[in-house]
Amino acid sequence: MHNTFGTLFTLTTFGESHGVAIGGIIDGMPPGIDIDTDFIQSELNRRRPGQSKITTARKEKDKVELLSGIFQGKSTGAPIGFIVQNKNQRSKDYEKIRNLFRPSHADYTYYKKYGIRDYRGGGRSSARITLARVVAGALAKLVLKKYGIIIRAYTSQVGTICLDRDYKKYDLKKIEENEVRCPDPLKAQEMKALIEQMKKEGDTIGGVITCVIQGCPVGLGEPEFGKLHAQLGAAMLTINAVKGFEYGEGFAGTAWRGSEQNDHFIASPKEDGTGEKTISTHTNHSGGIQGGLSNGEDIYFRVAFKPVATLLMEQKTVDIDGKEAKLEVRGRHDPCVLPRAVPIVESMAAMTILDALLMFNSEKM
Amino acid sequence: MHNTFGTLFTLTTFGESHGVAIGGIIDGMPPGIDIDTDFIQSELNRRRPGQSKITTARKEKDKVELLSGIFQGKSTGAPIGFIVQNKNQRSKDYEKIRNLFRPSHADYTYYKKYGIRDYRGGGRSSARITLARVVAGALAKLVLKKYGIIIRAYTSQVGTICLDRDYKKYDLKKIEENEVRCPDPLKAQEMKALIEQMKKEGDTIGGVITCVIQGCPVGLGEPEFGKLHAQLGAAMLTINAVKGFEYGEGFAGTAWRGSEQNDHFIASPKEDGTGEKTISTHTNHSGGIQGGLSNGEDIYFRVAFKPVATLLMEQKTVDIDGKEAKLEVRGRHDPCVLPRAVPIVESMAAMTILDALLMFNSEKM
Amino acid sequence: MHNTFGTLFTLTTFGESHGVAIGGIIDGMPPGIDIDTDFIQSELNRRRPGQSKITTARKEKDKVELLSGIFQGKSTGAPIGFIVQNKNQRSKDYEKIRNLFRPSHADYTYYKKYGIRDYRGGGRSSARITLARVVAGALAKLVLKKYGIIIRAYTSQVGTICLDRDYKKYDLKKIEENEVRCPDPLKAQEMKALIEQMKKEGDTIGGVITCVIQGCPVGLGEPEFGKLHAQLGAAMLTINAVKGFEYGEGFAGTAWRGSEQNDHFIASPKEDGTGEKTISTHTNHSGGIQGGLSNGEDIYFRVAFKPVATLLMEQKTVDIDGKEAKLEVRGRHDPCVLPRAVPIVESMAAMTILDALLMFNSEKM
Amino acid sequence: MHNTFGTLFTLTTFGESHGVAIGGIIDGMPPGIDIDTDFIQSELNRRRPGQSKITTARKEKDKVELLSGIFQGKSTGAPIGFIVQNKNQRSKDYEKIRNLFRPSHADYTYYKKYGIRDYRGGGRSSARITLARVVAGALAKLVLKKYGIIIRAYTSQVGTICLDRDYKKYDLKKIEENEVRCPDPLKAQEMKALIEQMKKEGDTIGGVITCVIQGCPVGLGEPEFGKLHAQLGAAMLTINAVKGFEYGEGFAGTAWRGSEQNDHFIASPKEDGTGEKTISTHTNHSGGIQGGLSNGEDIYFRVAFKPVATLLMEQKTVDIDGKEAKLEVRGRHDPCVLPRAVPIVESMAAMTILDALLMFNSEKM
Repeated sequence: MHNTFGTLFTLTTFGESHGVAIGGIIDGMPPGIDIDTDFIQSELNRRRPGQSKITTARKEKDKVELLSGIFQGKSTGAPIGFIVQNKNQRSKDYEKIRNLFRPSHADYTYYKKYGIRDYRGGGRSSARITLARVVAGALAKLVLKKYGIIIRAYTSQVGTICLDRDYKKYDLKKIEENEVRCPDPLKAQEMKALIEQMKKEGDTIGGVITCVIQGCPVGLGEPEFGKLHAQLGAAMLTINAVKGFEYGEGFAGTAWRGSEQNDHFIASPKEDGTGEKTISTHTNHSGGIQGGLSNGEDIYFRVAFKPVATLLMEQKTVDIDGKEAKLEVRGRHDPCVLPRAVPIVESMAAMTILDALLMFNSEKM
Repeated sequence: MHNTFGTLFTLTTFGESHGVAIGGIIDGMPPGIDIDTDFIQSELNRRRPGQSKITTARKEKDKVELLSGIFQGKSTGAPIGFIVQNKNQRSKDYEKIRNLFRPSHADYTYYKKYGIRDYRGGGRSSARITLARVVAGALAKLVLKKYGIIIRAYTSQVGTICLDRDYKKYDLKKIEENEVRCPDPLKAQEMKALIEQMKKEGDTIGGVITCVIQGCPVGLGEPEFGKLHAQLGAAMLTINAVKGFEYGEGFAGTAWRGSEQNDHFIASPKEDGTGEKTISTHTNHSGGIQGGLSNGEDIYFRVAFKPVATLLMEQKTVDIDGKEAKLEVRGRHDPCVLPRAVPIVESMAAMTILDALLMFNSEKM
Repeated sequence: MHNTFGTLFTLTTFGESHGVAIGGIIDGMPPGIDIDTDFIQSELNRRRPGQSKITTARKEKDKVELLSGIFQGKSTGAPIGFIVQNKNQRSKDYEKIRNLFRPSHADYTYYKKYGIRDYRGGGRSSARITLARVVAGALAKLVLKKYGIIIRAYTSQVGTICLDRDYKKYDLKKIEENEVRCPDPLKAQEMKALIEQMKKEGDTIGGVITCVIQGCPVGLGEPEFGKLHAQLGAAMLTINAVKGFEYGEGFAGTAWRGSEQNDHFIASPKEDGTGEKTISTHTNHSGGIQGGLSNGEDIYFRVAFKPVATLLMEQKTVDIDGKEAKLEVRGRHDPCVLPRAVPIVESMAAMTILDALLMFNSEKM
Repeated sequence: MHNTFGTLFTLTTFGESHGVAIGGIIDGMPPGIDIDTDFIQSELNRRRPGQSKITTARKEKDKVELLSGIFQGKSTGAPIGFIVQNKNQRSKDYEKIRNLFRPSHADYTYYKKYGIRDYRGGGRSSARITLARVVAGALAKLVLKKYGIIIRAYTSQVGTICLDRDYKKYDLKKIEENEVRCPDPLKAQEMKALIEQMKKEGDTIGGVITCVIQGCPVGLGEPEFGKLHAQLGAAMLTINAVKGFEYGEGFAGTAWRGSEQNDHFIASPKEDGTGEKTISTHTNHSGGIQGGLSNGEDIYFRVAFKPVATLLMEQKTVDIDGKEAKLEVRGRHDPCVLPRAVPIVESMAAMTILDALLMFNSEKM
C-alpha cells in the first residue's frame, strides 16, 4: 500500500515523470456529489509549471480525464479512475545523466533499493506525479464544501522574507492575486524579486507554506495513533521537498510557559435563542486541535520546504560505479517550488480532513 | 485501528490513567530474539515520573508483565501481550473537576466526541498511557541491535536554553548522565534550574528533543505516501504535547539556497579490498533521507513539545453546561515533560524503523 | 496485523494455550453501550470445554477480566483490553511429545516458519485462544442488539447425521436446549450418540454449523473486494478446523438453473400507511446478499468443520529430525468440536456485521 | 479501501461495464521482473466473452495498456497503472430497464446503498470489471514462476456433471484443450452439450472450479486471522457469482473420522546426499495447509458458482417505485460463466499467494 493515501477516502497513484501517463484511483468518494470538472481542471492548472515567469519554463498542459465513478454529472460511490497523459515523453534529455546520481535527489536511493535506474526526469520520484494529489484534493474539496469546511494555503516565507505568523492578519481571499500566492502584496513583491534572482543565478530557494482549515466540527481525529495533527503532518511530509511540519504555536511555542500558551474555554449563548451555550477557546494557541481531536477552532499549520535540488550550475557527484563526475543540467529549473506547492498542500489537507470526517461519521450511532 | 501503530511490526494499546491496567499487544515481533526483560523494565523506568526532583512527584512503580509470545527466553513469532497494573486508581482526587474542562487538555474534545466524560486523570488521553509505547520500543530496539541500528534521543532545548543544532558536537553516550537527558553538562544545569523555577511557580515550560538514528541500510521507506520521514513524523506527532517535527535542516534550512543545501555524493574504496566503492554524501543536510528513502547517512530529526497544560495555579474555564468556573489543581504537576519524553521519542523511532525494515525485507527476492 | 481482525471494529489477540493468559484488545467499540458483563461471561461459558459429558474433559474455568474502555458501566469509545488467566499452565504433560509433529496439527508448519517449537498444547495454534473471539463477539452482539440485528448459529450436521438445509423449519430459540446445540431434538439425540461413540473409541468426527443473521439493513458490505459474504467467509475460515464456507444455496445450488435460483422482487405496502412500498424478494436463494451487499432478507450460511486432529489412539509420525515415531496422547480429547464452535461462529459473524455496519455509517452524509 | 485487494502486493481497480475504461493499479510488484506483455494479453483473452459458441455473444476486444512501472521491459518497483478501453459504451440498450431491478443482480442493493442507479449493464457490479483482476493475476504469475510456484484451475462441475474430486487423476496441462476448460475430454463434451442446451433455452447453469497450487514453500500464511486458506477463500468469494469455497476434503470431509482424515508425516532423504531428510505427509486430506500455514504439499480448493442471473426469458420484478413489472432482456447472455471464470480463479489465487510470499519474506531476518 505504498502508493495509497488514506483509510476511508483513499487515493492510489501511478505514473512517472516521463511515462505514458500519470493517474490514480480515488476510492470512498461519497455518492451524489456534483462533479464540477472545470473546478478540478482549474485546481490542476494552479499546480502547473509555466504559469508565470518565476516558475519553471516547462509548459505542461495537463488535462485530466475522469474515467469512472461518475454518472450523469454525479459521483456514484464507485471508484473514480483518472489519467493525465504525459505530452513530453522524450527521455533523451536525460541520456547524458543516466549514470549520474544527482545530489539531493532520489536517484541514488531508488537505484540501491530497486536495482534499476529510471533516469527519465526522476521517474517515480518526480514532483510531477503530485498532480494526482491535486485531482483527488479537488474532489475532496467538493465534498467538504457541503459540510462548510474551507481550506486555504499560502506562501508565508521565501528565503528569509517571511510574514507574521498570525494568519488572521491577512485577507486569505487575496492569495491568488499574485504569482507567489502570498496574501501580503508587498512581501509578495519582495519574494518575487528573490525568486527571479535565484532564477538568474541558476540557484533555488526554500520557504514555508501556511495552511488554515475552517469549519470543522468538534471531534475529527482519533486519540492515540490517529491524532488529527499526526494525520495532517504525515500528509504534508509526503510532499516532495518538505522537511518540517508544525501546528498551533509549533516550534516557537516550545519557549513559552504553560500559563502563556493554555487556551481558556469560554462560552457564549447560541444564536438560536434556546439559551444553550457554545463553548470555544479565548485564544487558539493549540491550533484547533486538543488531544488529537479538532476542537472547532481554526486549524492552522506550517510546512517547511527545502530549496529544490535541481540547479542550473555545475555540481560535483559520482556515477553508478562510484567514479567522480560533474553534473550539469540545462533548461529545466524551478527556482522556488512554493507557489506551485500551495494547491498540493491544500489537496493533502482536504483529503486528510475528508478521511477523518468519514471516520467521524462511522462513529455516530 | 485507531489504537494501533505500524504495518508489519505493530503495537495496539489499551488502558486509561486510572483504570485497572495499561497494556498492549505487539504483533510482528521476529522470532528467535533473546528477550532481555531487565532491559525492557529499565527503559520503562526511564519514562517513570518521580525519577528526580525536577519531575512530577507521582511515584508510579510501573512493572511490566509480559504475558505471551515468549518461550524459553526467546520470542516465538506470536504476539506479545503485556500489562502494567495501575497502582493508583483513586479517582476521587478528580471528583472536584469532574464537570470542568481543563484548558488545553483533551477533556472537551473527548466529551464532545464520545458523549462521555472519563474524568479520572485524563482517562485515555493521559500521557501515562505512553508507557505501552516504551515497552514496544524496547522490544524493537532488541531487534534493531541485531542489525546494528542504534537510536538515541536527547533534550536539546528547554524554554530558550538550546544546544547547537549539530548533534555531532556532543557525546551522545552521556545523555543519561544528568536528569535533563542533555549531552551538554553546562546547558543541562541551566535547563534544570529553569525547570526547578517552573516547578516553584506552578508553571510549565516546553522544549525540543533531538533524535539520531545510526546504522540504517540504504532504502528504508517507501516512495510516495510511505516516505520514511513521513512515517517518523507521524510517529512523533502522536506523542502527547508534540507540536512540530523537522528533519535534516528542517525549518531553518528553508532560508538556504539549493547550492548551499545540496549534499554532494562522494565515493571511497570499500574496506574489503575488492576495489568496489562505497557511496556516501559529503555533507548531510538531507538528514539521512532522500526521496523518502534512507541513504545510509545518519538520520536526525527534532521534535517540538509544548509546555504541559496542567498548572498548579488558578485558571479560568467553563463547566459541562458552559458556566464559567475556576479550575485549581493540586499535587500533580510535571513542570517539563522533556526528560521523560526522551525514551518515548526513541521508542516511536525504534518501532518506525523496525516496521520499515520488515517492509524492506519483504521487497527482497 | 496478523493477529488483528476487522477494519473499524477490530479485535487483536494474544496468548497461547499454556501461557500466563489469553487476551485481546477490542478497538472501535461505540461509546455509550451498556456493558453487560454477565452476558459476556455467559457467552464465554458456552465455549468452555467440559460443559457436558460429550466434550473434552478439561475443566477450564475461564473468567474474563475487562481492563479498560468502560466507565460507570458504559463503553467510553476507548479500546477495551481484556485477559483470561490460564489456570493450567503445566506444560510437562507435553514433555513427551516435544519433539514430535502431531499429524494434521500446526506443529510442523509453525516449527518451519518460526524456527521455534512451543510444544505446550499447541501454543498459539490451540483452539483455546478462540475465547478471545467470544469476548469480542459478545460485545459486538450488545451493539447489534441496539440495531435489531440478531445472530444465531446451530449444529446442523455431525458426521452423516444432518438437518434439512432450510433453517426456517426449525425453532432457533431451542438451540441451547441440548448439548449438541441442534434445534431438532431427535437429530440432537442421534448426534449425541455418535459423539459419545467417538469418545469411547478415542476418535473424532466433523460436521457443519449453520448461521442465520436477521435484521440487517440493505447495503451492508462493499462492492468488489469487500463483499459482505467474502468478509463473512474470511471470518469463518479463520476458525480452527474450518474447511469450507457457503452461503445461500451454496455448493448444492451450483446444479440449479438460473430460472430456478433467481429471487424475484416483490413489493408490499409499508405498515406506516404512507402508501410507500417495501421491496423484498419472493424467495431467498441468494442468502440475503446480492452483489456483495445485504438486501434486507435473512443472511444464512454454512461452515464445514473437519474432525479434530487430536486422537486418543496411536498414530504414526516423525520427529524434528525426521525420524519415524509413534505418537500417543492421553487425557485430552474433544470428540466433536461443533457444539463448542457454535458461539465462535456467532462471534465471528457478529464482529463482521458490526464492522460492516460502522463502514455503512461512514458512508452516510 | 473497498476496491483494493491485498496487503503487500495490491490491486486497486476502477471502472464500470459501460464507462470509458476499466483499469487498475498494481502496487508492490517486485522490481526486475521481465514483463511479458504477450502473456498478460493472452491471459486477458482467456477471460474474454465470445471465445467460443458456448459463451456470451459479445465480442469484447479487450486490449490492455500498461501505463507505468515498467522501464526497458522490466518492472521498476513503481506501481503499474493499466487501462482497458471500453469499446461498447452504448447504454441505450439498457434504457428499457433503467427503472427495473433485475432479479438476483445487484441493481436493488446498489440503488439503496448509493441512492443512484447506474443502469448501464450493471455498472460497477458487472462481471466485466474482473478483467482488471486477470491483468494483475498475470503479473503475479510472472513473479511466482521465478519461485517455481504454478497455479492451475479447471472446470470440475457444470450442473450435475462432475469430475472426481481428486485432481491428481487428471492431466492439468490439457485444461486449455477444450472450450469448457475441463481436463476430462469426455466430461467436457457432456458439459458443453448442457451449456448449449441452456443457451438454446435462454437459461443458465452453475458449477464448480477446482484450483491447484504447486510449489509453495512451507510457512505461507499467518496464524490466527491471516490463515492462508482464509485469504484464499476471501479472494474467491469476491468473484462474481461465487457462493462457496472449500479446501482439502472440504464439506465432504465433515462426515469423516479424524482417524481417516489425519495426514501422517513421513520423511525421505534429501536428494542432495547430505543425509538430511525432507518431511512431507503420506496423504494430503488437509489440502496443503495446516494451522493456516502452507505445509509444502499441493494446495487445492473448490469454488462454487451459482447460475448467472441474466436470463433470456421473461421474469417478474418490480421497478424503483415498487410497481410490478416484467423484465425481458435480449441479446446478452452467458449460459455458463465457468469456462471464463477459470482464469479469474487462477488470478485471485496468484495474487493471494504472491501477497503471502512477500509477507513471508518480510519475516526472514
